[in-house]
Amino acid sequence: MDRSVRHFEGELDTLQARLLEMGGLAEERVRATVQGLVSRDVKVTDRVLQGDEPINQLHVEVDERCFRLLALYQPMATDLRAIVAAVKINSDLERVGDLAVNIAEAARRYALHPPVKQLIDIPRMGNLAQNMLHDALDSYVKRDLPLARSVLECDDELDALKTQVFRELLTFMLQDTTTIEPSLDLILVSRHLERIGDHATNIAEDVIFMVSAQDVRHHGDV
Amino acid sequence: MDRSVRHFEGELDTLQARLLEMGGLAEERVRATVQGLVSRDVKVTDRVLQGDEPINQLHVEVDERCFRLLALYQPMATDLRAIVAAVKINSDLERVGDLAVNIAEAARRYALHPPVKQLIDIPRMGNLAQNMLHDALDSYVKRDLPLARSVLECDDELDALKTQVFRELLTFMLQDTTTIEPSLDLILVSRHLERIGDHATNIAEDVIFMVSAQDVRHHGDV
Repeated sequence: MDRSVRHFEGELDTLQARLLEMGGLAEERVRATVQGLVSRDVKVTDRVLQGDEPINQLHVEVDERCFRLLALYQPMATDLRAIVAAVKINSDLERVGDLAVNIAEAARRYALHPPVKQLIDIPRMGNLAQNMLHDALDSYVKRDLPLARSVLECDDELDALKTQVFRELLTFMLQDTTTIEPSLDLILVSRHLERIGDHATNIAEDVIFMVSAQDVRHHGDV
Repeated sequence: MDRSVRHFEGELDTLQARLLEMGGLAEERVRATVQGLVSRDVKVTDRVLQGDEPINQLHVEVDERCFRLLALYQPMATDLRAIVAAVKINSDLERVGDLAVNIAEAARRYALHPPVKQLIDIPRMGNLAQNMLHDALDSYVKRDLPLARSVLECDDELDALKTQVFRELLTFMLQDTTTIEPSLDLILVSRHLERIGDHATNIAEDVIFMVSAQDVRHHGDV
């Protein structure tokens, strides 16, 4: 194996390690922010609000690494697809970090009111979104098509939970106007969690395209 | 100029033309869906709900064009940055198309209830988001830094309008529970419009990075 190929593979491994690190941070932030919401613990919520710097730094670093790899090695075929996928996954993970901040902001407001109800479906949505994110990244690193496809299936479940949360909270709001403000925050949280699932779905679709060179996006449209 | 360079430049022009076409479709969908909401015209809304196929087709085509350009011509420096920017802009525009669908869904539900109020701030948000999208794409094609920077400034205005819409609707909901359901849909619409502005901001940031090779993202974090 010549030196340039060895260098390239080393750099690609580092790129993937950084993406995984970013994914780990994003997952942890989703977990922490939902936990802060459920336990009404403002300290936990504030840590999420102040802690997006590491993900933002990784976002810039991963983008730079992708550019360098494309410019220095002019990769072809699978390697090229892996790097373009990394550019997109990088954007998705950065936005998941932003969504964790949005959830933390809602959690902070929610803690100012008496609790509307015991939260069951929202933590369930949080776990599901986290798992989808984890599996999507895992499928990228392992080039694992069945795992990537399983992420797409979870998205329907997340969507159903979001609808259920909305209906239940609407009932509360109609019965008792003092629940309107905190219920609105819970509805927003469920939308943010749904969007985290959408980002995991985007990543899984990129993996499927990368591995099989088959575009699964917009498959329902034709 | 050798033949391969001429071919490359021709292909890059076509790529940009396709992105502009996609941007035009996305803008038109945002315009139509807000108009359908304001005029309570279900026919307009339904056209948006059924019309995302052209954007989705362009999404797949632009991605393929980017891959082909990277693989066949192994571009460097500015050209490489322009193509990687196109990959990202493509994702942003596709999601704007999805958000137009989300707004149309909310508009359809909203039309089932008596109107909560005369809509002023939401059409204003729609115009602003449309203009931001238009200027962001224009700045990409013209490599126009000041124009790209002006898009970033509009984002604060959009954010302020979103907060204003929320506060006003909350007052309605607290005063009269029959406004809760339609008000919720208007709040969701304002969030979708805010996200369209976020996508325009992402595009403008990519343009600034592309033109100046300076990373303006996360500039507030240090």
